[in-house]
Amino acid sequence: MQPVDPVELWTSKPFEPEIRNGKIWARGTADDKGQLFCHVKAIESHFKANGKLPVNVKILFEGEEEAMESHLDDFIIQNAKLLSCDTAVISDTEWFTEGLPTICYGLRGITLAEVTVTGPNRDVHSGSFGGGIDNPLNVLCWMVTQLRDRYGRIRVPGFYDNIVELTDEEREAFKLLPYDEKLYCEDLGINSVFGEIGYSTLERVWARPSLDLNGIVGGYTGEGAKTIIPSKASAKISMRLVPNQEPEDIANKIEFYLKLIAPPTVKVEVIAKAGGKPVLTPLNDPAIKAASRALKLAFGKEPVFMREGGSIPVAELFQSVLKANTIFIGFGLPTDNIHSPNENFDLNNFYNGIKAIAYFLDESSK
Amino acid sequence: MQPVDPVELWTSKPFEPEIRNGKIWARGTADDKGQLFCHVKAIESHFKANGKLPVNVKILFEGEEEAMESHLDDFIIQNAKLLSCDTAVISDTEWFTEGLPTICYGLRGITLAEVTVTGPNRDVHSGSFGGGIDNPLNVLCWMVTQLRDRYGRIRVPGFYDNIVELTDEEREAFKLLPYDEKLYCEDLGINSVFGEIGYSTLERVWARPSLDLNGIVGGYTGEGAKTIIPSKASAKISMRLVPNQEPEDIANKIEFYLKLIAPPTVKVEVIAKAGGKPVLTPLNDPAIKAASRALKLAFGKEPVFMREGGSIPVAELFQSVLKANTIFIGFGLPTDNIHSPNENFDLNNFYNGIKAIAYFLDESSK
Repeated sequence: MQPVDPVELWTSKPFEPEIRNGKIWARGTADDKGQLFCHVKAIESHFKANGKLPVNVKILFEGEEEAMESHLDDFIIQNAKLLSCDTAVISDTEWFTEGLPTICYGLRGITLAEVTVTGPNRDVHSGSFGGGIDNPLNVLCWMVTQLRDRYGRIRVPGFYDNIVELTDEEREAFKLLPYDEKLYCEDLGINSVFGEIGYSTLERVWARPSLDLNGIVGGYTGEGAKTIIPSKASAKISMRLVPNQEPEDIANKIEFYLKLIAPPTVKVEVIAKAGGKPVLTPLNDPAIKAASRALKLAFGKEPVFMREGGSIPVAELFQSVLKANTIFIGFGLPTDNIHSPNENFDLNNFYNGIKAIAYFLDESSK
Repeated sequence: MQPVDPVELWTSKPFEPEIRNGKIWARGTADDKGQLFCHVKAIESHFKANGKLPVNVKILFEGEEEAMESHLDDFIIQNAKLLSCDTAVISDTEWFTEGLPTICYGLRGITLAEVTVTGPNRDVHSGSFGGGIDNPLNVLCWMVTQLRDRYGRIRVPGFYDNIVELTDEEREAFKLLPYDEKLYCEDLGINSVFGEIGYSTLERVWARPSLDLNGIVGGYTGEGAKTIIPSKASAKISMRLVPNQEPEDIANKIEFYLKLIAPPTVKVEVIAKAGGKPVLTPLNDPAIKAASRALKLAFGKEPVFMREGGSIPVAELFQSVLKANTIFIGFGLPTDNIHSPNENFDLNNFYNGIKAIAYFLDESSK
């Protein structure tokens, strides 16, 4: 559960749900009690109407997602047999935009790296030593600059090996989305997007790997000048991965490459750490077909398809431990204010979401 | 006056001078009361022996050097006529090593720059946006990497225009110095020196320009990972200059170049600031010849010649306002512990320093 602060910005009390303007307002309505409750009510409806469910269903409620410590991973690993299934459905996502039922069918994975460059054993005066010895901060900048070309394509050798390319069907599906690059840039306050040539922005953030510097620490960072050659500098790097990149393999490759290019004038340490694996359920997977029919029946509209640029670690566990394809059928909207004051869940999405899950169980049995 | 902390590390009281082992121990003995007093006693000796000085002498005692605020610059500018002279002598430097009377005849100048790169108007998630938009920290690293090649040669167009090359005489003089590169590296804890090809380390730090990153601020700098694309990143840069580079001209050039290479995906601001000008008195200057003869007479040994990599702003003022060549005849030793506990001044250097200044006045009249 996210905190409610700043509580004074809430129109109604955060823990006393109130219905206004076709929405229900309270902390957790959209993220994620409301979405979870769609499943409960869908199952209840099947029992009421037919006395049974059309397919076997296993329900896993997890209440620790926003807490610092989570026991979910261990639970899944220890109960793999109990939880075994063909398809995992997670309802914790948003529609691409209001009015567009959305199925998310892929996530990027992640590998992290931290590189530390050490020069002299103390910060030294840039007047007395500048030009005489190498500068770990200059070296660090040079090294991390070798990781990408000027168009965002990653230069770590072998980085793109085994990558699953976007299918024509996916590219066509993304083109149907009402994405407005002008609005996207305006919202971020930037002049233009950036990245690998030959791919649209949505394709790049969802289905192509990326490499970003998350932070650099080195030298004097206060106001004004302090003319030193710092003793040490380090950079934090995150890489987002797509199928079939293996986080462990990418960790090895970036570590190897950074050590390879490290100049002999400094000491270089690299710590690379594999994170969650990328997740992808093919668009022709029966579960996606069933979900598409169910959303059409519930909302009267063909759903759209998207992937996500971030990671949801549990989805990767469903894939790797349970060998289950995972799809994300969410009913949230970008206007739900999740994690913010005035969280709300659209009642139309709630009621039709119940129907959608009920239909999905039916369609999954076909 | 430098503070005495940590006072418990002093063997004798910092403000009660004590003579031990041929040295006088107290705060300020070497830096700079003792050196200054050599001039006072030399002048007194001339008056005692001859009743007059062999040349006109103007003395400027400055007591604010270690204070945050200094009135010296304004005083010199406002009293340029009063202070006018042919040669300025500063006694505030060290010998290259014990037993080697040293004349310092040049300093590097300095220009500072700060470059700030702004991307999205807020830190954003590297999963949701990585690959979609440019990253100001990656851009910053790329930009600063363009400033130097991999051998430390500076790539800012026009940076090396008008540079005064080392003369053969200077290069020969530096070769006479007991510089040990192995010890130099050991002291710094580095494997090797680094820099522009074709110049020795002493040549590079004293007589060639340099460019160093002094610090970078950008993104997440705490423990562990925070996978963001930062909104903003900035770098502090110092450039050490040699004659006849003009700090103002170099400031314009780096600002122009950084703005020229700035990619259109981000906003780039550059603030470049000219500092002190480089200072150089030619080795064949009559004052240097006079100082050489004086040191030989006082210490029984030919002096060595060096330049300094740092800046002493007042020297630049003597040069630019008074049009006086400046030389540095110091009597300190690398073991004097200036700015540290147990500061001391060698008595042999003190007494012979008095003689050296007295001889210098004689020799200057020839």
